[in-house]
Amino acid sequence: MWRSCGAGARAVVAHGLGRVPPTAPCSVSPQDLAVPNAGWSVAMREQFQHLLRRAADGSWRRIPSYRRGLDYLPEVVQMVVGPVTGPGPRHFLRNLDAEGAGFEYAIFLHSSGHRTQCLCQLGPYLEGHHGFAHGGAIATLIDTTVGTCALAVAKTSVMTAKLNISYLAPMPVGAVVVADSRMERHEGRKIFLSCRVRDTKGDTLYAEATALFIQVEDTKPPPAARP
Amino acid sequence: MWRSCGAGARAVVAHGLGRVPPTAPCSVSPQDLAVPNAGWSVAMREQFQHLLRRAADGSWRRIPSYRRGLDYLPEVVQMVVGPVTGPGPRHFLRNLDAEGAGFEYAIFLHSSGHRTQCLCQLGPYLEGHHGFAHGGAIATLIDTTVGTCALAVAKTSVMTAKLNISYLAPMPVGAVVVADSRMERHEGRKIFLSCRVRDTKGDTLYAEATALFIQVEDTKPPPAARP
Repeated sequence: MWRSCGAGARAVVAHGLGRVPPTAPCSVSPQDLAVPNAGWSVAMREQFQHLLRRAADGSWRRIPSYRRGLDYLPEVVQMVVGPVTGPGPRHFLRNLDAEGAGFEYAIFLHSSGHRTQCLCQLGPYLEGHHGFAHGGAIATLIDTTVGTCALAVAKTSVMTAKLNISYLAPMPVGAVVVADSRMERHEGRKIFLSCRVRDTKGDTLYAEATALFIQVEDTKPPPAARP
Repeated sequence: MWRSCGAGARAVVAHGLGRVPPTAPCSVSPQDLAVPNAGWSVAMREQFQHLLRRAADGSWRRIPSYRRGLDYLPEVVQMVVGPVTGPGPRHFLRNLDAEGAGFEYAIFLHSSGHRTQCLCQLGPYLEGHHGFAHGGAIATLIDTTVGTCALAVAKTSVMTAKLNISYLAPMPVGAVVVADSRMERHEGRKIFLSCRVRDTKGDTLYAEATALFIQVEDTKPPPAARP
């Protein structure tokens, strides 16, 4: 829903998008999870290598991804949300420890800054009907892909305002897919985007979607919202 | 995306919806997770008790919920998808072990069979922007609530065909909300539904959505889809 590169977090995301380096040194070295691990299938690895080779000429760039959006800047977490007690927050798509169980993904940003592709393997912990990915998991993949594209366009925080999804074919768990998103137009604070989710060969169109994101001022989370 | 009460699984879901008992004895006693645990906040517990009291006259019924959709009938898992090796599948909304970390929820079905309400606490592992629930998590809550309503209407498997969501206010992690869904109309195999997500007092409308579900024949998952 929200994507931020504002305040301290701006350095995190903007760095991820390859624009500017972090503005301050950081004592924590978070693990970039948008790289192969033991849970990646052969198909996932092969497509990842294909996308890396395509990116070699600078036309695309892989975006790092962390367990928590703010892992990169713990000082900012302290400043913005105060000391975190109990289980700290985790990014929805990175909340499982077991490799291969949930979302395994890597997002690539086009050099135009107006297009993203998310290579994703949907693991067995994302099941809805037995054997198939939950509709909410597919919506999550789409929201993340278009949200990252909107963030690259806006260069400030963005918020999902509308998400319209057509589910066209059931997606088996374990499937490796590519969500391909692009900006359609940018009117004031409104960013209109589209997204299609296909298998890696492009033979099956699993879903297509349109989205509207709004550029917003950075918002401090309400203290009462902390668990 | 898919909801099933077909084949052997029909007994599972239909029983959950209070229609018929399971057709065969089962050696496994799965844990119903749609009840309070240590991760439920005071607000979540209070609203749950309120909804239980409201259900006392039979106008509403709480639907059990399990870690896996097929926990209830392991014989059916064997028959439909074959032996499960490695980490077995889990339902997307029940894939975290830590109580209170992810989705904590209980769905209530109206006696008309045309309306569902999902009481849900969105934990810190569902974060998007720091302090707020991910748009995909909210989409997941909505898809589950309308999908359960569609299943009650169809009394056979259903598939999400369209999901159109308007995000109206940012939802803090830790928030306790009620997703209220109803069938709008039923035309042949098409079931049209709506959903609104509010805080428990009804003061904040976080999101509203429309959905189209299609009644489908039960589908055996492709063997290649198993991880």
